Amino acid sequence: MAHNDSPFPAVNPGGSLVIAWRLKDKHVLLVGGGQVASTRLAHLLDADALVTIICPKIGLHPLLLHRIYDDNSTKSRIDYHDRIFAGEEDLNGMDMVLTAIDNVEVSKSICLMCRARRIPVNVADVPPECDFYFGSMIRRGPLQVMVSTGGKGPKIANLIRVKLEEALPDNVSDAIERVGELRAELRKRAPGVGGKLGQRRMDWMTEICQTWTLDELGTLDETSVAYLLDHGWAKKRVPSYNETRGKVTSSRSWVCSAIPFLLADFERPQIFHFAGGLIAGIILSVTYVKCTLRQ
Amino acid sequence: MAHNDSPFPAVNPGGSLVIAWRLKDKHVLLVGGGQVASTRLAHLLDADALVTIICPKIGLHPLLLHRIYDDNSTKSRIDYHDRIFAGEEDLNGMDMVLTAIDNVEVSKSICLMCRARRIPVNVADVPPECDFYFGSMIRRGPLQVMVSTGGKGPKIANLIRVKLEEALPDNVSDAIERVGELRAELRKRAPGVGGKLGQRRMDWMTEICQTWTLDELGTLDETSVAYLLDHGWAKKRVPSYNETRGKVTSSRSWVCSAIPFLLADFERPQIFHFAGGLIAGIILSVTYVKCTLRQ
Repeated sequence: MAHNDSPFPAVNPGGSLVIAWRLKDKHVLLVGGGQVASTRLAHLLDADALVTIICPKIGLHPLLLHRIYDDNSTKSRIDYHDRIFAGEEDLNGMDMVLTAIDNVEVSKSICLMCRARRIPVNVADVPPECDFYFGSMIRRGPLQVMVSTGGKGPKIANLIRVKLEEALPDNVSDAIERVGELRAELRKRAPGVGGKLGQRRMDWMTEICQTWTLDELGTLDETSVAYLLDHGWAKKRVPSYNETRGKVTSSRSWVCSAIPFLLADFERPQIFHFAGGLIAGIILSVTYVKCTLRQ
Repeated sequence: MAHNDSPFPAVNPGGSLVIAWRLKDKHVLLVGGGQVASTRLAHLLDADALVTIICPKIGLHPLLLHRIYDDNSTKSRIDYHDRIFAGEEDLNGMDMVLTAIDNVEVSKSICLMCRARRIPVNVADVPPECDFYFGSMIRRGPLQVMVSTGGKGPKIANLIRVKLEEALPDNVSDAIERVGELRAELRKRAPGVGGKLGQRRMDWMTEICQTWTLDELGTLDETSVAYLLDHGWAKKRVPSYNETRGKVTSSRSWVCSAIPFLLADFERPQIFHFAGGLIAGIILSVTYVKCTLRQ
């Protein structure tokens, strides 16, 4: 990051604009049928696109064959053509074009045609011919996380993705869905767009998300949503997770709940560290006692 | 995830296509000058775009004023117009358009004009008028991570982003840069595009990234890169991190290196867990000894 004396954050050039492109029911042309094409197709179907695939059948990856002929959830969304790319007319009606073929010359000419028609295009493995790049993806229900190293290393992007995947709570998609449900219920109680009420709604949701942890948000159910709305929104306050569970924290109950709480808070590697410490403590003490007894 | 008996992974519809859009020296129009516009501008400048801002000066956020008039790293990249949006001619030459204004009618008309000209457009807070959405971003040098909840909750996307940020090793951008340098050096030794050599190069890089941890990759320097190439690439093998550091692991040196290694491996919260275990172990043992001595 550049040296920066001002109170404003410095810009950090050299990146791309990472965005979530809407493809629901949009027409996407995928030229090619190998390993890379099968990965591209997965991304396109995950984004609800209508995909046209152009590739001689002999070149189709088994996963593509499955998606085109066998997979009931996908075959109606794929329009397959058993041939090579025929020319500009193949681009008619397309909202996006991806190529994943070995022929660099054909790729380049497809890219030029797309540019002329202002169709966003990605040519696998030829960065200068791309309007956009793909990265390493995590998907958990409504959650999408994309890791990009700006083309500096797809391998290391994968390493980083794995590290980030490990850090996501197991119930992260529950947390997102439940917060969405809470917001929908809140909109029923306090309807309307924008204005003071809209701002109050937004502030209250923000405070909920700041007060509750991700794990706690994932446990929201009908009862706790109703409690939050009745005893929180209606009274202009934000109840804690424990309050919605009917837990009042006295010093006595604190002691009782401390042990399961501590255990619940532990993730697997932390348990190993705790266990390591425990064993080290016992060995230290036993050694000390032995030495003391000997003297 | 849907029930899936086949050996192929199920698709997971309902997402977007998360991509890294290239904006280097592309022309982007930003209509509006408030808080949201200032966030959009940061993303655009990080992606090396040439930005045209249209907004009456009275409506400019302090950060936009700074970027337009004072910030030497950005003012040459911004073309500022002190007025409201004037009509279709404002879209001439634009590769992308973002609006962040309160006037929904004007936003909608800008959106329609962009659609007619096939210019990608984002209208802040009006999802149906967007070709693409923004998410919550992490930036560390060449690394970009984007968290999207598909519009289900920007607040919870931020929570998740914070959790992921904590999981990134401090030197993650070093790791990416160093691996990029290693790859560049390797290309000097084994030049050419594609073919068998290209495949061998790719496989070797993959194996390096699988054998070394992210933390280890971040320590790569001239000496270790040279060692990797001389004793690794040249001999068709992948030296370990310890080997490049001149460490041969005998049982004796293992014991000597175990303690600093264990400590180095600890991150702060883990140390607390270890310390907790240590104290628990000592207390347990002391209590046991006391009870035994009493009997």
